[in-house]
Amino acid sequence: MAKVNADYLNLRGSYLFSEIAHRVKDYAEANPDKKIIRLGIGDVTLPIAPAMINALHTAVDEMAAKETFRGYAPDLGYEFLRNAIVENDYVKRGCDIKANEIFVSDGAKSDSGSIQEIFSKDNRIAVCDPVYPVYVDSNVMAGRVRNFDETLGKWKEVYYMPCTKENGFAPELPTEPVDIIYLCFPNNPTGTTITKTQLQEWVDYANKTGAVIIYDAAYEAYISESDVPHSIYECEGARTCAIELHSFSKNAGFTGLRLGYTVVPTDLEVEGVKLNGLWARRHGTKYNGAPYIVQRAGEAVYSAEGQAQIKEQIAYYMRNANYIATNLKDMGYEVFGGVNAPYIWLKTQDMTSWEFFDKLLKGAQVVGTPGVGFGPHGEGYFRLTAFGDYESTVTAMERIRNL
Amino acid sequence: MAKVNADYLNLRGSYLFSEIAHRVKDYAEANPDKKIIRLGIGDVTLPIAPAMINALHTAVDEMAAKETFRGYAPDLGYEFLRNAIVENDYVKRGCDIKANEIFVSDGAKSDSGSIQEIFSKDNRIAVCDPVYPVYVDSNVMAGRVRNFDETLGKWKEVYYMPCTKENGFAPELPTEPVDIIYLCFPNNPTGTTITKTQLQEWVDYANKTGAVIIYDAAYEAYISESDVPHSIYECEGARTCAIELHSFSKNAGFTGLRLGYTVVPTDLEVEGVKLNGLWARRHGTKYNGAPYIVQRAGEAVYSAEGQAQIKEQIAYYMRNANYIATNLKDMGYEVFGGVNAPYIWLKTQDMTSWEFFDKLLKGAQVVGTPGVGFGPHGEGYFRLTAFGDYESTVTAMERIRNL
Repeated sequence: MAKVNADYLNLRGSYLFSEIAHRVKDYAEANPDKKIIRLGIGDVTLPIAPAMINALHTAVDEMAAKETFRGYAPDLGYEFLRNAIVENDYVKRGCDIKANEIFVSDGAKSDSGSIQEIFSKDNRIAVCDPVYPVYVDSNVMAGRVRNFDETLGKWKEVYYMPCTKENGFAPELPTEPVDIIYLCFPNNPTGTTITKTQLQEWVDYANKTGAVIIYDAAYEAYISESDVPHSIYECEGARTCAIELHSFSKNAGFTGLRLGYTVVPTDLEVEGVKLNGLWARRHGTKYNGAPYIVQRAGEAVYSAEGQAQIKEQIAYYMRNANYIATNLKDMGYEVFGGVNAPYIWLKTQDMTSWEFFDKLLKGAQVVGTPGVGFGPHGEGYFRLTAFGDYESTVTAMERIRNL
Repeated sequence: MAKVNADYLNLRGSYLFSEIAHRVKDYAEANPDKKIIRLGIGDVTLPIAPAMINALHTAVDEMAAKETFRGYAPDLGYEFLRNAIVENDYVKRGCDIKANEIFVSDGAKSDSGSIQEIFSKDNRIAVCDPVYPVYVDSNVMAGRVRNFDETLGKWKEVYYMPCTKENGFAPELPTEPVDIIYLCFPNNPTGTTITKTQLQEWVDYANKTGAVIIYDAAYEAYISESDVPHSIYECEGARTCAIELHSFSKNAGFTGLRLGYTVVPTDLEVEGVKLNGLWARRHGTKYNGAPYIVQRAGEAVYSAEGQAQIKEQIAYYMRNANYIATNLKDMGYEVFGGVNAPYIWLKTQDMTSWEFFDKLLKGAQVVGTPGVGFGPHGEGYFRLTAFGDYESTVTAMERIRNL
């Protein structure tokens, strides 16, 4: 008689974005005449830029001819893409990362959900609060996290690092032992960052205590300030304590194309075992590579033309971010983020996060993301994204102003 | 201090196909003048057919325009593809499967590796022997299978169902309790099948004992005989006991495009829990959908034009299969498979599987797959695939004949 994975049954409600989609769908069906503006889920709206489109067409044509057709990709991803990543994302920044440390994948969501698998169930995880839900949910599904405290709204096994306006949204070093530390900077959901000096403290802490940092750098392309690190490997000693996750979703608009990569340095050992080898084994056994045509599009992101085009897209979104932040401040909201990240994190004043969600949806037909969906210290906050088009963003602010 | 997942350390050597790639690479580097013919890994060689290429180009152009750009896909996959799957793969065959039971993914390898995750660690798995390595390896990585018996060459926790020439490569119903049964027909690696009547016995057995069948139908497009089922849902009662895995890799040559789907009927409950909901949760939390452009290519597979084109490709490969089988028989080999599947399974006569591998590689520059790599009852067998081009296949047979 088969038995289910009871750990799955510990999960809380549905995945945050599914719940939002559900509420929006209900509202839209009941109000077919209302035009909804979506500044909730972090999905981009600008089309894929020409350099990547050209690369896709060329690669599709290669798939059409026997001489140039490509079947299964190499386990770690094509060398042309891994070499471009190494050269542009690491060597140019003075980081010592090699192609055999890059694992090309279908995106940072998959990898951030699966990376916990190479660690023992006995590890204690530490997360920022608020936090991207996948980090915690994937640990619940694995049975590493099991007991939810209804009163506190927290998982008992998880070490939470509050990030609020009081501490400038910078997590403080743990005061209890932790084993795996999830960090995401520029941060989702708060849109805030830490400096290279601050990140160095984390690297030193991890090396001293034997913890491993899972560093989610999905939003690094939005960094505008010079003292904010683009990669954790800019910090000395990160090769022995950190795994880094990257996405092409936000820098190049690949949310619908699916491409990302994970860096596991060969110097990173836990209990004498190289994590690079463990992740290689998972990658080779339970995954079969990103599509060749998408890997070629990823390569084009690093071309001179591609770089110029994605810079324009990022500037477009950051103009939205600035517009949202400026307008909300003008309306009297307390606003954070939006400088090195495409997310605006605002105080909901006298409402709960979900009350504010419903107010915005029903009163202004604007969809955002309730802060509490990211963790208990997100209560009273709300996330808006800069990924809408400019005109919709302007309209959204006008509607919120008229609430 | 972080700790690794010690279950990973129980894995045996490297993944079979990585080991083959390694030996071939070494040989090729030492013998740069030799032309190697690869009939080992089940990778296709024909280019993607025109209907799918056209769909890809059209979809790429959609991604280039703001009005038609698509970001994140719906959790289960686009409806246009799920509806095409339901209509063509199920309704036309009289199977009662609905679109909300279809989960589009990046391929059957990922799903066959991850599907075990929704089950308890306490389940005992049953597999055919020989078997596609991912089924067992993913259970080892999950800690469901831990102890390898060096003498028997078997995992102690796994229930093996020998498939040899003596029983016509048809597994026999378990004589001990098992919880999750992996079946793959047409079979990889043996290329053999069972009839609908035989499969119905498995469905009845699973329903009677409360076991769940993971049915891998990756090769169904190659079925040529009328009494061989294309889907387990052709059997009465399968909706309450079976999950089915499908791939676009082998029917439409998508090994490099990455597309598959998994069917979890809403009637399938374990301990009162609907597995459809559990898999939906995994899909939504740890995965982010197949690329839009690839899902459009998948839709094109079901168009009249697409169907005609993939039938031609399948016929091309099956001509190879027939050529290999006929020639090997003529050389005195005992040969199985190749009628409803693109795999030829042959007896290696007086050699072990790996000895035969080395003999073929070094003597004929032909790469095949050692049967023992698929399980202890694969020892003394060898797999050749029909996915080469016809000319290479002919040359390979000529070289083997001259050994």
